Amino acid sequence: MSLNVAIFGLGSMGYGMAQSCLRAGMNVYGFDVVSDPVSRLVAEGGMAGSVTDVAPRLDAVVVVVLNAAQVENVLFGEDGVAERLQAGSVVMACATVPPDFAKDMEHRCAAEGVHYLDAPISGGSAKAALGKLGIMASGTKDAFAAAEPVLDATAETVFHLGDKAGAGSAMKAVNQLLAGVHIATMAEALTFGMTQGISPETFVDVITKCAGNSWMLENRAPHVVAGDYTPHSQVNIWPKDLGIVLETARTAGFHAPIAETALAQYMRAVEMGLGHEDDAAVTKVYAKNAGLTLPDSQS
Amino acid sequence: MSLNVAIFGLGSMGYGMAQSCLRAGMNVYGFDVVSDPVSRLVAEGGMAGSVTDVAPRLDAVVVVVLNAAQVENVLFGEDGVAERLQAGSVVMACATVPPDFAKDMEHRCAAEGVHYLDAPISGGSAKAALGKLGIMASGTKDAFAAAEPVLDATAETVFHLGDKAGAGSAMKAVNQLLAGVHIATMAEALTFGMTQGISPETFVDVITKCAGNSWMLENRAPHVVAGDYTPHSQVNIWPKDLGIVLETARTAGFHAPIAETALAQYMRAVEMGLGHEDDAAVTKVYAKNAGLTLPDSQS
Repeated sequence: MSLNVAIFGLGSMGYGMAQSCLRAGMNVYGFDVVSDPVSRLVAEGGMAGSVTDVAPRLDAVVVVVLNAAQVENVLFGEDGVAERLQAGSVVMACATVPPDFAKDMEHRCAAEGVHYLDAPISGGSAKAALGKLGIMASGTKDAFAAAEPVLDATAETVFHLGDKAGAGSAMKAVNQLLAGVHIATMAEALTFGMTQGISPETFVDVITKCAGNSWMLENRAPHVVAGDYTPHSQVNIWPKDLGIVLETARTAGFHAPIAETALAQYMRAVEMGLGHEDDAAVTKVYAKNAGLTLPDSQS
Repeated sequence: MSLNVAIFGLGSMGYGMAQSCLRAGMNVYGFDVVSDPVSRLVAEGGMAGSVTDVAPRLDAVVVVVLNAAQVENVLFGEDGVAERLQAGSVVMACATVPPDFAKDMEHRCAAEGVHYLDAPISGGSAKAALGKLGIMASGTKDAFAAAEPVLDATAETVFHLGDKAGAGSAMKAVNQLLAGVHIATMAEALTFGMTQGISPETFVDVITKCAGNSWMLENRAPHVVAGDYTPHSQVNIWPKDLGIVLETARTAGFHAPIAETALAQYMRAVEMGLGHEDDAAVTKVYAKNAGLTLPDSQS
């Protein structure tokens, strides 16, 4: 019998994961606050329905929403799925959330007899669609076992980070500290280079072959070269994710000055009205400060 | 007839370049302020002598010293080589220096009839020894032509950045901005992870496969895991190189807040007496602030 899986949150990451589950032969139910991606998923062989009807049939729930408040609402809100799930089913929570929130969700799911896998994801929408995500997972042995078919369908690499929720989210926070700083530093270096007569194209050509390279630079700097700020991942993600990093750090008595400085650049980008653009648009903050003209998409 | 090349500065980078030139069949003269690496090079088939005797025979001079003051001293100091070189020979200047300094050196070499290639290097000592450096080069067509055999012997990739000195050094400054920030951010993220129960080993295992990865993280974080701060590249490099970045930025009216914040961490490392350790030791600044114990080399 095919596994019954629901995906909550059909943004680019969730939609890709839903496609990967469909390819693996699962019955995939899509849920989103907007109807368009739900209809698209149904056209690709997915299913739709009400939480009340669908929940009792589910083996696994994958939550790929934006933040902790949305995770809590999906699981325990008015139309919350957790209390409607059968005992032994699993919630796989993929949003970037504070480690303490993940621990709390695990606890509350356990009270419903439901397993909880703290399972933040890394890799971007292209890898989500290919079933090749990196998943930073922690939870009980039973949670891993119940989630295994979904992990197999969606991940290239599953990092087993421990037997309690929280560890996965902590590792994701570490990754986001690095990724957020690396994008803002790409912006700083690219525009600094422009003040010295180095074009964005030359910057990408040279740096991607040198010690200054990063995964994020290689992925995002080409957006600046192309003048294409179509939001694969929005500026708005970073005040949220670096906020989680800094709040978690503060609670631990840890000072993270570089992450703080990067966050300030994203905040300025939001103030400039760039929140819904691709996060490479943080480059526009530096360009504005220095009076530089970035490539536009017509050129 | 074999090319006659002199290498000034036989640190790990210069020594590796000298070995690569020897392998290419050149006559290689080694110069350094200390005699030990000169003797080692002679034992490997190199040559030694006085600047006065050797300079008139040279086709190329490779300057791989620490900073601009040392470059100027090698070329135009009391025992300076520039005025003793034959017309048409080339100076290949590999130190990280301000772009304006490189322009000045080109000008002063031209007055002696000597070509100048602004040729900062990237890749580390292992790649220097293998003849697989990245070289960010700018200079006249004649300078490139005269330096070609040395470039062929020492570089995997030569980036042609323009027909004037300064462009190579500007690109190197851009690379150093990124590399310096990436090492300090590795330190910040690794220790932040430790406050969340993530071991340095797990940090490296996971992050090197995720979007938070950088060339520098992959290269330096294992030093922290091993507790091995043998200086492949010293902490002391960064106050110098990020100083060049920030001075060049200031002159251009460009504000680089992330580079400034990273520099502050290296300055604290120097204050802690870590200047001569491997630059991964900037992690000790964060560990001290947060009361964390890093792996030591005995474990």
